[in-house]
Amino acid sequence: MEPGGCDAGPTVKAVAAVLPAGGSGERLGGATPKQFCTVQGRPLVSYTVRAVERVSWISDIIVVVSPENIETMKSIIEKYGHKRVTVTEGGITRHRSIFNGLKLFSENKFSNHLLQKPEVVVIHDAVRPFVEEDILLKVVMAAKEHGAAGAIRPLVSTVIASAADGCLDHSLERTKYRASEMPQAFLFDIIYQAYQQCTDYDLDYGTECLHLALKYCKTNAKLVEGTADLWKVTYKRDLYAAESIIKDSLSQQICIITDVKEAVVQVGFLLHESLRSQIKVETISISLSKRDNHLQNIFSGQCYNFVCINDKKYATEEIQQLVDMLEESNIPLLHPVVLISVHLNTSENASFSIDLEELTKMKKFAREVKRKNILVYGLLIQYKDYFPLQETVNSAAALTMALIKDRNPELTGQLVVA
Amino acid sequence: MEPGGCDAGPTVKAVAAVLPAGGSGERLGGATPKQFCTVQGRPLVSYTVRAVERVSWISDIIVVVSPENIETMKSIIEKYGHKRVTVTEGGITRHRSIFNGLKLFSENKFSNHLLQKPEVVVIHDAVRPFVEEDILLKVVMAAKEHGAAGAIRPLVSTVIASAADGCLDHSLERTKYRASEMPQAFLFDIIYQAYQQCTDYDLDYGTECLHLALKYCKTNAKLVEGTADLWKVTYKRDLYAAESIIKDSLSQQICIITDVKEAVVQVGFLLHESLRSQIKVETISISLSKRDNHLQNIFSGQCYNFVCINDKKYATEEIQQLVDMLEESNIPLLHPVVLISVHLNTSENASFSIDLEELTKMKKFAREVKRKNILVYGLLIQYKDYFPLQETVNSAAALTMALIKDRNPELTGQLVVA
Ligand SMILES: [Mg+2]
Ligand SMILES: [Mg+2]
Repeated sequence: MEPGGCDAGPTVKAVAAVLPAGGSGERLGGATPKQFCTVQGRPLVSYTVRAVERVSWISDIIVVVSPENIETMKSIIEKYGHKRVTVTEGGITRHRSIFNGLKLFSENKFSNHLLQKPEVVVIHDAVRPFVEEDILLKVVMAAKEHGAAGAIRPLVSTVIASAADGCLDHSLERTKYRASEMPQAFLFDIIYQAYQQCTDYDLDYGTECLHLALKYCKTNAKLVEGTADLWKVTYKRDLYAAESIIKDSLSQQICIITDVKEAVVQVGFLLHESLRSQIKVETISISLSKRDNHLQNIFSGQCYNFVCINDKKYATEEIQQLVDMLEESNIPLLHPVVLISVHLNTSENASFSIDLEELTKMKKFAREVKRKNILVYGLLIQYKDYFPLQETVNSAAALTMALIKDRNPELTGQLVVA
Repeated sequence: MEPGGCDAGPTVKAVAAVLPAGGSGERLGGATPKQFCTVQGRPLVSYTVRAVERVSWISDIIVVVSPENIETMKSIIEKYGHKRVTVTEGGITRHRSIFNGLKLFSENKFSNHLLQKPEVVVIHDAVRPFVEEDILLKVVMAAKEHGAAGAIRPLVSTVIASAADGCLDHSLERTKYRASEMPQAFLFDIIYQAYQQCTDYDLDYGTECLHLALKYCKTNAKLVEGTADLWKVTYKRDLYAAESIIKDSLSQQICIITDVKEAVVQVGFLLHESLRSQIKVETISISLSKRDNHLQNIFSGQCYNFVCINDKKYATEEIQQLVDMLEESNIPLLHPVVLISVHLNTSENASFSIDLEELTKMKKFAREVKRKNILVYGLLIQYKDYFPLQETVNSAAALTMALIKDRNPELTGQLVVA
C-alpha cells in the first residue's frame, strides 16, 4: 500500500513493523514469558499486535518468537483474528531476533514467499501494548528524514556508575540523559546494513538498535519525546497496571437498552441521568425482537458495556437475543463485554422470591456465554408504587459502575440488588 | 533506643528516617500529589510510614511535606495510628525538604523540642511503600561502614545522551550503569555537613543525595542491590499496580468460623478443603457468644479475611459480634477486612425467598461497618438432603476468593449464591 494524505499516514512508500517477542521473562519471576501472560484472559502480545495492526498504513507485521512458541503465537493470531501478521523464528538474543525478522524482507530462506521490502521499518516491543498511532507516525516520519528515530522518555531515577569496589563512582546529571524506549523506526536499508555488518559481540550483548545504526551506518537517530504509556511490561506489577489500564479503557461508555413500556423507559432515563457524570451513556428504547440498525451499529462499535432493562423476572430470552446480536456483529470479542440484565420488581410484596432452579439456569447460561467473552450479571431494582426512589437508582448506578470496572468473571450469573 | 543482636537490628547507636513527601505529583496528571492519592481508601504515604514504623530499631520518623499539606499529614497520622512520627515543613525542592527534615535533629527553630541526633539517618521516598526491613538494614549497616549507602537496581531501558540537534549523541552500555533508588542511608554528620556546605544551585536543581555526600564530603556511597519492589510510584499506572499488590498481599490467608452444629462444621470442613490450594486457611468451630482467646488472637493478627458460616437466614447478630471483636482487637483497621457471612439454606423448597426488608437492613448494616473499614458480603449455600454438593462448595470457594481479591466496597451487603 502507499499511504497518502487522506489516510493521515506518512508519505512513505511502504512501512512494515517487526515486533521482537522472544524474551524469556525471567524478571517477572514466572515461567510464562511476559508477552504471553494474559491480561483479562488475552495474551499481552495480542494487545500489542492489535495496537500496530489498527494503523492502516503499516502493511506487514512480523512477530519474532522463540522456536518453542511459534505454534502458540500462530494460535493467538488465529483466535484474535489478527491480520497482516507473519510469525517467524527468533535467535538467542534480542538483536539476532530482530535481524531474523528483517531477513523476511530480503532473504527467502526463512519463508516461502519474500515480503515486499518496506522503505521504513518500525521496531516495537511485544510488551509495550499501549503504543498509539501518533508516536508511530512521528518516528516513521523522522526515520524517513534522518535514517533512524526512536522514542525517548525522561529518566525516572538518577543513573549512576559504580566503581570496581561496589561504591559510587559518579552520578549522571539526570536532565542530560533520556531513557531510550520503543517504538523506533529506520530506513530499511540502513538498519539491515547495520545488522549485516554487526559483530557477533554486538549481536549477542547489545540491545539498542539506535546504537547499531550509529556505529555501523553513522546515522544519528532523531529522538522523539514519547508519552508515559510507552512503558515496557517488565515486572509482575506492570501486568497489574496493564490490566487496570485496559479495564479503565473498557469502562468509558455504556449503552442502556430498554423495551418500549413506559415504566421501563422511565427507569432507563433515571439510570441514564445517574450514570452520565461518571461515564458516557447512550440509551435506546426498542423492541428487541425487531433487529434494530442503530443497536447493531453500537454492537459493532467500541462499546463494551450494556444494560438491558425490563420487567420480566428472568429475561433469559432478551439476554439471549443480545448475545446473538453481539456474536453476529462479526467483530472478534477481543475484550470481555459486560451485559447487565436489570429486572424491575414491581410487586408490592415486601418479599422477593428467588426461584433457585431459575437462578441455576441463569448461572449456567452465564457460564456458557462467558466462554464467548461475554460477562452477564443480574441487577434487581425495587419499583414501588410505580415510582423508583432516586436512592435506589443511584445504588443501581453505583453497582453498574462496580460491575463494569471490575469485570469479575467469577461473579457472572449473580443477582445484585440495588 | 539501642538495637542489638536479639532485635536483629543494626549495631548502630540510633537510627532515624526522613521521608520527603513534598512532591507535587505533576507526572500523575492529577491534582492530588501522588503521596496523598488513596489506595484502598488509604493515602499512599500512610503505607510507606507503616513500612518504616514497623522496623523497631528506627526511632524517629520525620515526614517532610509542603506547608499546605501539614494538616492533611497530621490527620493521616492520627487516623492510622502512626507512632514515632514528626511532621515538618518542606522547602521548594526535594533537597531543601530533606535538609529541613535533618535540621530537626540539630536546630530547634522548626520544632519545640530537639529530637535525639541519630548516628545514621535513612532517607526514603514517601512514594515507595513496599520497602522491606531487610534492605533498610543493609543500607544502614553499609552507611555505618562507608558513611553513605544507597539501593540500586538494573536499568530497564538503555540510557542515551542527545546532542543539541535532538539527535542521538551516544548510548550508555547498560551493564555499566545502575538506577539509583531508595532507601539510602548516611552517617548523620556526613549528610548534614553536605547539606550545610551545599550550594544554592545544588539545593535547587539536584536530586541525588549520594551525589552530595560524594561532592561535599568525599564519601563514595556503598551501592546495595535492591529488589524490584523498591520502585517509585510515579505514574497513574503505578497507583494501579500498588493497589493490586496490596490486594494480593491481603488475600494470603483466610479464617473460617463455624458454630458447633454438625452440618455447619461439615460445610466449614469442605470449604476449607476447597480453598486450601489457593490460600492459607484456618478453621475454628466455636460458640461466638463465648469470647474465644484463639479467635481474639486471629483478629489481632495479620488476617484480613473471615468467613462466618451458620444456618440462620440473616445472621445479623453473629456478624455484629464479629465486628465488635474486630474493633475490640485494638489494632487500627489499616486495611479493609472482608467478612463473608455464609448462610446454609437447608430448606427442601426449590425457591428461596429474600425478605426485601431484611435485605435492606443488611445493606444498611454493611454500609455502616464499611465506615470502620470492614466489608461485609453474604453468600448462600444450598444444602440439600443434609449434604452439600461438592460443586456447590467449589463455587462458594471461587466466590469467596473473588470477593476477597476484589475487596469491592460497592458490593457490600449483597448476597451471592454458590
Ligand atoms: Mg531518586
Ligand atoms: Mg530498549
